[in-house]
Order: sequence, then structure tokens, then C-alpha cells
Amino acid sequence: MIIHLKKNTSAEIAQKVAEEVKALHYKKEDFYVLITGSGLKEVPSSIEVHVDQAWPMKNDLQLASRSYMDKKREVKIGDVTIGGDTNNVILIGGPCSVESEGQITSATELMTSLQLSTLRGGCYKPRTSPYSFQGMGLDGLKLLDKMRTNHGVNVITEVRDATQIEEVIEYSDVIQVGAKAMYDQGILRACAKTQKPVLIKRGFGSTLQEFAQAAEFVLSGGNENVILCERGIRTFETGTRFTLDLCGVAWLKEYTNLPIVLDPSHAMGYAYGIADLSKACLAMGVDGLLIEVHPNPKEAKSDAAQQLNYDEFGKLVGELSHLAKALNYNLV
Amino acid sequence: MIIHLKKNTSAEIAQKVAEEVKALHYKKEDFYVLITGSGLKEVPSSIEVHVDQAWPMKNDLQLASRSYMDKKREVKIGDVTIGGDTNNVILIGGPCSVESEGQITSATELMTSLQLSTLRGGCYKPRTSPYSFQGMGLDGLKLLDKMRTNHGVNVITEVRDATQIEEVIEYSDVIQVGAKAMYDQGILRACAKTQKPVLIKRGFGSTLQEFAQAAEFVLSGGNENVILCERGIRTFETGTRFTLDLCGVAWLKEYTNLPIVLDPSHAMGYAYGIADLSKACLAMGVDGLLIEVHPNPKEAKSDAAQQLNYDEFGKLVGELSHLAKALNYNLV
Amino acid sequence: MIIHLKKNTSAEIAQKVAEEVKALHYKKEDFYVLITGSGLKEVPSSIEVHVDQAWPMKNDLQLASRSYMDKKREVKIGDVTIGGDTNNVILIGGPCSVESEGQITSATELMTSLQLSTLRGGCYKPRTSPYSFQGMGLDGLKLLDKMRTNHGVNVITEVRDATQIEEVIEYSDVIQVGAKAMYDQGILRACAKTQKPVLIKRGFGSTLQEFAQAAEFVLSGGNENVILCERGIRTFETGTRFTLDLCGVAWLKEYTNLPIVLDPSHAMGYAYGIADLSKACLAMGVDGLLIEVHPNPKEAKSDAAQQLNYDEFGKLVGELSHLAKALNYNLV
Amino acid sequence: MIIHLKKNTSAEIAQKVAEEVKALHYKKEDFYVLITGSGLKEVPSSIEVHVDQAWPMKNDLQLASRSYMDKKREVKIGDVTIGGDTNNVILIGGPCSVESEGQITSATELMTSLQLSTLRGGCYKPRTSPYSFQGMGLDGLKLLDKMRTNHGVNVITEVRDATQIEEVIEYSDVIQVGAKAMYDQGILRACAKTQKPVLIKRGFGSTLQEFAQAAEFVLSGGNENVILCERGIRTFETGTRFTLDLCGVAWLKEYTNLPIVLDPSHAMGYAYGIADLSKACLAMGVDGLLIEVHPNPKEAKSDAAQQLNYDEFGKLVGELSHLAKALNYNLV
Repeated sequence: MIIHLKKNTSAEIAQKVAEEVKALHYKKEDFYVLITGSGLKEVPSSIEVHVDQAWPMKNDLQLASRSYMDKKREVKIGDVTIGGDTNNVILIGGPCSVESEGQITSATELMTSLQLSTLRGGCYKPRTSPYSFQGMGLDGLKLLDKMRTNHGVNVITEVRDATQIEEVIEYSDVIQVGAKAMYDQGILRACAKTQKPVLIKRGFGSTLQEFAQAAEFVLSGGNENVILCERGIRTFETGTRFTLDLCGVAWLKEYTNLPIVLDPSHAMGYAYGIADLSKACLAMGVDGLLIEVHPNPKEAKSDAAQQLNYDEFGKLVGELSHLAKALNYNLV
Repeated sequence: MIIHLKKNTSAEIAQKVAEEVKALHYKKEDFYVLITGSGLKEVPSSIEVHVDQAWPMKNDLQLASRSYMDKKREVKIGDVTIGGDTNNVILIGGPCSVESEGQITSATELMTSLQLSTLRGGCYKPRTSPYSFQGMGLDGLKLLDKMRTNHGVNVITEVRDATQIEEVIEYSDVIQVGAKAMYDQGILRACAKTQKPVLIKRGFGSTLQEFAQAAEFVLSGGNENVILCERGIRTFETGTRFTLDLCGVAWLKEYTNLPIVLDPSHAMGYAYGIADLSKACLAMGVDGLLIEVHPNPKEAKSDAAQQLNYDEFGKLVGELSHLAKALNYNLV
Repeated sequence: MIIHLKKNTSAEIAQKVAEEVKALHYKKEDFYVLITGSGLKEVPSSIEVHVDQAWPMKNDLQLASRSYMDKKREVKIGDVTIGGDTNNVILIGGPCSVESEGQITSATELMTSLQLSTLRGGCYKPRTSPYSFQGMGLDGLKLLDKMRTNHGVNVITEVRDATQIEEVIEYSDVIQVGAKAMYDQGILRACAKTQKPVLIKRGFGSTLQEFAQAAEFVLSGGNENVILCERGIRTFETGTRFTLDLCGVAWLKEYTNLPIVLDPSHAMGYAYGIADLSKACLAMGVDGLLIEVHPNPKEAKSDAAQQLNYDEFGKLVGELSHLAKALNYNLV
Repeated sequence: MIIHLKKNTSAEIAQKVAEEVKALHYKKEDFYVLITGSGLKEVPSSIEVHVDQAWPMKNDLQLASRSYMDKKREVKIGDVTIGGDTNNVILIGGPCSVESEGQITSATELMTSLQLSTLRGGCYKPRTSPYSFQGMGLDGLKLLDKMRTNHGVNVITEVRDATQIEEVIEYSDVIQVGAKAMYDQGILRACAKTQKPVLIKRGFGSTLQEFAQAAEFVLSGGNENVILCERGIRTFETGTRFTLDLCGVAWLKEYTNLPIVLDPSHAMGYAYGIADLSKACLAMGVDGLLIEVHPNPKEAKSDAAQQLNYDEFGKLVGELSHLAKALNYNLV
């Protein structure tokens, strides 16, 4: 159950009430929000006097649910806003991994030349083998920071595990919680304590309900700037790398109030399908796309098969602009 | 390996050569096409004299492959053509099951009022329980035939198992091989002997390779009018009925030469997501959509949750027309 | 709901009552069994006078459920009985496909030399490609029949689609409905009209509920000799051919009253794991095993990788005998 | 490629050689082990002089592979050894979560009364909702430590994310890396620096190859005490909680050299199937079982449905002992 306490409730009383109903709580503007397990269906009479409004909930999809807040939330990334009624679609591009200053500068210039605001690039790569390229780490983060300063782009980069979360929070505009870290409470709880936007990727073996509940870890700590990112689930089909779950996106749009970004690059795993899938995602109505582009995909140190080259990316941006115009969306 | 024999080769020699290389064969216009297992990589010298052209193949995706025929095939449904360079997108609508003359007449009138050419309606329902509605059978087929005669629509209806294949061939314009029957050689081999278009739905547990190979059973018998239909695969996610595999559609577009129709209704299983998914499919570039619509979905005898009502369907057709125009497609 | 009519109810009245409640029905010994959809939860007063006993049901798993009949059913294969309290475990062996008289005679002699009663061998192979070996068809069935006559073995063979069902019923002791045909009502309804045992394999994309409901098609037609066979489901893991679902077997044992046979050969897809899996299945408590063995696996025309050779099979039978003894089962 | 350097190689030279071939390395007894990416297939001539032996590898399953070390590794848990030729099967029991001193003492006494050596109990629970019981944390660890001291049991407990890894290493005899943390390099790299045994659970969406590669993160850091634990994968089947992958276990036995423990409790998710599955696992030949048992399952704060009560557990231990004896295994 979600409970809004009355506006003049003190911090001590909020704390006391929260303990009484075993709730998490945070302060939002000038009132406190309490969230109990969804088993609680009625406000106990002992706390009624402090309660302004309460929402009993079907299950633990609570703060992120349409039952609580029927309007899609807005999230601000630098000076760009997505969600709400903006009709903005953020097109995030960049390489899988930051590999060198030359490479990331080149990608940044590509983005700015196309009037796109937000650059991606991984520094801590969650590889499945210890014997492959693991990312540039802190050196990579500093290169991203340089791009931010020198070129005015926003940057999004991935945290691999709880040991680098503070660094990633410091150097990025959007913290990306990767698919393999979706359940990582060390990361999620740290993200809850900042106000930076957090983009949570769906685990490729995770249900929609679990995915939405990962957002609850961040929201219930007081950070309302959460974006969900579908990036393909693992199925029996191995002709493509993963299976992009657009039925799932329809579910997320129906039941959650969070902006949604799609990552066709990781879902497909091959450059040839990215353009078609990007158009499908845009036409469906989402808040953003995450597309991998590399100056020389064949030489990429990770995900070589799925990164577009600059020509392919430029052509795709043109097609998406045309489609966005027809559908009354703004590519940003 | 696919082998085209020289144009003046006689039926007897074609037969003899086919036996020598253990090939299936059929006559196409004025020459014979032979198809051996993909293990054969070179034309044996003993038959060289009869061979016009030959295509060694990587695997048993042969006649349906882009390696053999790089252009998308055309298929004619009544007087509507899809595939090839037509840019036509066929929007097939109608109820899950034919339930009564009133119901199917009403659906037919909806379709014609929207200038849509092709009506769907199941008569032999492949239900998973013997205790639920099994379809009207032959009586249903005769109602569809009446719609065809009286309203000028094309009809597509499903064959459940090999015992009704002859009836379905007789009464339909497109034979639908359902997801549960995708491997049914009794059906596929019978479809190979007619020239009517065959729409094969992907089994929800079937790989893309197996799906494309189901088409080979029809193509290798001499019926080149095959359409592939993706309708959702079964995954761990149960928030939606199935998972529409658009990565798989990208694969089919890359590797096969067959027109592709999408069925968002069965994939989603709930009316709320159908419009979004239909727009995604159209924007991706496909040759048709199959959408369930019922005069009164709540009363439907099968698939009640996923059928649109007339208002929803009409609104969706309007949106798809707008999108089609922007993308230079023709809804038919 | 399952309804037993009173013992002296006439055929006409049984028919009339069945129509009134839209039930399927069959005669069992000296009374009629009616089965309606599971939506019906109370016996309508209009038919009460004819009713002996009634079982309201949670869902359409009815005749096969433990709620209706708590004891495991017995099924007789030739002179061997499995199920009930017999503690018998039938070890069915033989090649994937019948390939020649020499090959199948050799396999038969292997089985009889090991005191095993029942031989498997496919004649109509449900291959996914039209260009690979399709089985010997009727010639194969006649060879199996010869084995039956000359060597006293029982034979089990697969029906591929509804076009060969009559032949398979005629020539086999157990009719095998393959995984790809599990939903085939043409086959299931034909099996319902004979009294021969029917072994239904689970579709590799089919839920346990659907699997059990496939049995309902046969049971509700009056053939109570149904055996369920788990043979692996399709999952994201492709290191092995399929994933043997022993959790599912625990479910089937808990909720259904049908004997259960396991097929580790198709699940694993590789000879190396068959022995371990067979022991696991036996220790778990099942009614039979289906194991592929071939005189020369490398030369096999289908499923070469997963068939055991004679030495491996003989050794495995020895180990299973030892284990069976410890667990008080009888290998037959 | 795995490379053993010659015995008298100095630390500096080992370091230099490792850098030259971009290898990880660690010291084993009196020599250095280097591991490069599996792309390297030949020892470069420039380092040949330092090399004792080298194993080129097919893929990044290297130190854990049978190609490198054909014998199963031994791992010591307290004074119990599993793996190698011991024929020991460790039966680890205990509650899902440590809930109170009374509860965990009771469980400990159950274990010792059955002569079982090793107790499980979670303190940091990786729940999918922030609103459910999250575990007792450090207080729980201290209770486990008390059990260890007072009752002489070994304890295994789970690390949830990298923020508690040091505590878990300190207070446990076996560090459990849970399914949701299988890819967590913060955890795996910390486990590589201790010599305590590490039990890695397979992610429910992880392939066998990825699972084995998670072990490589620990092994390549110099901790050779790694145990793999299969606990069910996520499939389309939802009648049971997960699907225990025994085909996968056969694969792990064939291709890896690590001891294997099975967790039927989490796979099944319901108490009714645990006994059957445990017997299956034991008969298959594994090195241990992990079974949840609780003094009062209905009151359990997590995983209530799947925990056995004491009677069920005691009966199961009896049956497993009988089976172990027949198969020449020792339950420990």
C-alpha cells in the first residue's frame, strides 16, 4: 500500500508511522510517502490521523504503477525531457565500449552533427569471460566526462557491479544498470540515493513484473527519475542474439508510469535488422532508442556484429526523423 | 542443392535424374526444378549434360532462401498481390471463430466498409481442450463461402489436421496452416498439390529455420504461393500470451524470399496492445497483418480477450492508413 | 464436470442428457461417463435423476486428474502391465528409424537377449526438412509386424499425421503420438476409437496442462489406455538438444493418474548423457523409459548422435537392473 | 590458452610474460599458471623459453575444462571432501532464510541428529521486491557463526551483492554466489582472492557455457575451490517454479572438472516434488544436494511453499541413504 502522509507531518512522526506499518518511506516535496508490502489492504486505524491519501495495491508493483499514478512520469536528461506529454523520443547512440580518445571523440562528433544530445559508451563491461576485453574502467569514464565538457553531450554509461557505482554516478548524466545487474540491490539502493536519472535494463531472463519491481528499489528510496529499457530476452530462438519483447513493452505502457527506452542493437545482435526494428519501436510509441554505432564495427573490441557504421546510422536517423514527423514525435 | 534442368528435358529424364541424385522435383513453366539434400555440393558429372544451372546450399532452407532467389516472391490472393515490389500490405481482419451467419456477415460488412479485401474466420479450431468450443466445421466453411460469393471478399481459414484439408482447400482463398499444425506433413504435402496460397503460421515452439523449412514442403511440391506468418513464440514471459518475435521477422526478411504477414492478436492475447504492435509491424516493413475483430468480443466463443471491437478496429485502420501513406505502403 | 450416470441408464437417455449439458460421453463397463466443460460446477436439477456421482473440476484436466481418480491407472502392453501398483518399469529400446530388415532384426534380437519386451522403431519420420530421410513408411510397419510375429516382442511406432493413423493402429501394439503431433486432433480422435494403448509425447513447446489435456481427447472418447511421455522441452539452452523436464514429471505424478514414460534420448540428443539421465528417471519413480539403440549409430539415417550402441545399451540395462532391484521396481 | 611456466620462473618474469601475451596469471604451488584468451592457439616463440606446458583451448571454458584437467577436482568443506574419487555426496540442508536464533538452532540440531555436516541459511536475501523480507543481514551471519562454533557444523550462506562480500567470506565455510549474482564480477573477483570454497549457482537465464565461465573468474584468480550448482532454469513452463536442467548437468559432467551440487528445492518450488527430484539427482551421480527444510514451512518468511518440514526431510534422508548405499556413494 502507498500512503501519503499529511503535509505538516514531522520527520519523527513519519519515521514512527513507517515503523508501525513496516514501510519504506521518503520525502517528496513537502510530504512523506510510505510504501508497505502489498499485503496491507487497509490503513490501520492507529495511523489514520496522519494519513492524507492511501492506495491499496494488487501486488508489489506500486510506485511505478498506473494504479498509483496514471500519467507517465517525466525524466530530465541534461536539458532534454522525456516522458509525460512531451512526445520526445531520445535517440541515444555511441559505441558498445569506450576504446580510445580518438574513437569516442569521433562518435561524439557524429552525434552532435546529427543534432542528437546523448552519447552512450561502456567503461566497465560485464563480459561473460574473464579473458576478453573488460573495458577501460575509470580512464574511460574520464574520457566520457571530457566529451561532456568539450562537446556538450549528455553521457550514459553502465555500472557493472556495486564496486564502481560511486564513480559511475559521478561521471555520468544517466546511470545505466545493465541487464546482468538488474537484480543488484547494492547498485539499485545506491541509485536510490542520488537524483540522477537511472536507466534500468531488463534482465534477459527477467519477467516484466520483476523488471518493474527493480524500479521500485530506486523509486522507494526517493529517486523518481527511473527509465525502463527493454533490450531483448533469451528464448529458444538462437538465429538472433535475443528476442526483442514488444508485447512486453505494450504491457509496460499499460501497467507502469515510467518512460521506456528500447535497445534494438542488443536484441538483434546483427547490424542487418537494427533499422527495421528501430522503426518498429518508434512507431509503437516509446520514449527513446539506444543504438550502437562505431567508426569501424569490424575492429570493435566488443559486440562487433551489431554495431552500425556511420553511414548506416546517418541513414537510419534520417528515416526515423521522417517517421517521427509523420507520427508527431520529436527526435532529441 | 537446387538444380534447374535444361528447358527441353522430358518428364522421363527429369524423373530419372531426380532418382539418381535422390531429389524432389516439380515442373515450373517449361523446365524442371530438382532439390536434393543440402549435403550435395557439386553436380555429379553423370547428370551434368541435363543441367542448366545449380545452386549449392548451406542448409535445407533452399527454395525459400535469398541465396537461390534474391527477390521477394509475389503471391496473389484473389485480385490482390502482395510481395515483390508491390509495397502492398494486406490487412486481414475478422473474428477468431465463425460463430453464426449474423456474426460473420457483420464482420464481412465491417471489412468491406473499410475497403479491406480479405476476411479471416476459423471453422476447425485447434483447441487444447476437448471440452471447449471446437468450431462450426463444414457449416462454418459454407458460411465463409457465402461471404465470398455475396460480398466479394477473399477468405482465409485454418486447417486443423489432415482430415479436413480437402474441404479447406475447396472453400478458402488462402489456406491457413495453424501454429499447432506447422509440422503436419499431411497438411503441407496436400497444400503442395494445389496452387492456392498457403499461409503457414510459425509454431510457437519452432525455430526460424524449422519455420522456413515448413515452407520447403509446399514449395518443393510445386506450389510457390507460400506466405509466412509470425504470431508469437512461447517464452518464460506470461504477462502477455506469447512474445511477438520481430527480431525473427528481421531474420526472415534477410534470409527468405517469402512474403511475411504478422499476427499481433495472438501474440499479445489482450486487446490493449494490438494497436501499438500493429503500427510497429507496419513500420518494420511487412506484407500483411492479421487482426482479430468481433462484433462483441466479450461474447466471443474463443479468444475473447484479444479481439478488438468495431470501434477499436476502425480507429486502428485509420491510424495504419496514415502511417502507410507516410511510408509509401498501400493497405489492401 | 465429470458425471457418472446410474447403471441402468439407456443409451438414448445418456445421449439426451449429454446433449442437455453439452457433454462428451462414453460407455464404461455398465454405465455412462459424461464430461462437460469445467465451467459447470453443479449438476443441473433437470438431470439429477439420472446421475450416480459427479465431480466438479477446477479446469479441463478432468478424466486424467487425481481429483477424479486418485489411483494411477494401469495400462496393458501385450502381456505386460504398467501403472497401478505393479512397480513395473517398461524399458522400451530400439532404433530411431526402421532402416532395413537386417537392422531391425538385429535390434529385436538385442532386446530379447536382454529379456526386454518392447521394441521401438519409427516408420513415418516427422522430419523438419523434406530433403532428409522420411522413413520407410508402410514397408517399415510390415517389418515391425514381422518382428512381432517372429520374435514375440511388442512394438511401438509413431504416427506422423492423420493420414497414416489407421495403418499405425493396425500394425502396432502401442500407438506413439509424437511431440510434433501432440495437438493433432485428427490423430487423437482416431486413437480414442481404438482400445490400443496410446503413448502421447509432450510437445517440446507445450505446457504440462496442455499435455495432460491432449490425453483428455483420447480418454473422453472411451480409450482409457493412455501413457504420457516427457521427452524434453525447448529452452534457451542449446548445449543439449532439449531440456528434460523432471520438475514437470513431478507435476504429472501429483496431478494426473496416467502412467509416465521418459525419453532421455531425445531430451539429451547426445549419447554421453543417456545413462546418467536414465538412472535419474528410474530413481525418480516412473513407469517406463524409451531409449534409442542402433547397431551402428554413426551410420544411422536419423538422430545419429543420440543413439547408443549395443555395448553401451547392454551396460546401461545392467546398471538399471541393479538400481531397480534396490528400489523394488521390476524392469520389463 | 593455458600455459604452465617452468618451476623456477621468478615472479617478475611471470608478470612480464603474462603482459606480453595479455594473460591473467596466478601461482599454483611452485609454478605460475597463465591464461590468455582462447584465440591464442600457439605459444609465441618469444616466451617459449619460459614455458613448461601449454593447452590451446576451443573457447573460454579453460581452467574448468576437461581438456585441461580430465579428473574431477576435489573441494574441501570443513573436514569433508567432495569431488575427485571420493564418491562423497554432501547433503546440505537448512532454511531458506535465517529468521531467529531459535529457528536456526533447531535446524542445526536437525542436521546434526541426522549426521549431516553442512547447514544452509540466507542472511542477505536477493528478493525481487523491496517491500518483502530482506533477510537478517549481519545479525544472521553472526547466528550462523554461533552454530558453527557451538554445533560443529559447516555453514554456507549467500552473498547478494558486492557490498557484503567481505562479511560473507568472514562468516561462512562456503560462499554461495546466488543465481541472480552469477555474473557479478565484484563478487567473483573477491572470491578469487580467498581460498574458501565458492558455490556458484547458475543464473536461471544463463547458458551452461556462461555458467562455466563464471567459474573461470574465480579459478583464474587463484582460488581453485569452486563448486557449480544447478538450481533450475526459467522456461515457458510455469506449473513448477523453474525447470531443473539435468541434461545440463550431464553436459557439465562431460565438459567441466568441477564438483556439482543440485538444488531441487528452488527448481521445483513446491515441497511435493523435492523427494523424487533428490533421488533423481543422486542416482545421476552428483557431488551434493542443497535442500530447504524449515521447522514450520507455512510460517517461513521466504519460499514457504518449497521448504520441507522435519518429518519429510528425515524420511527423505533415509531414502537417500538407502539409495546411496546401493550406488556406492557416501552421504556426508
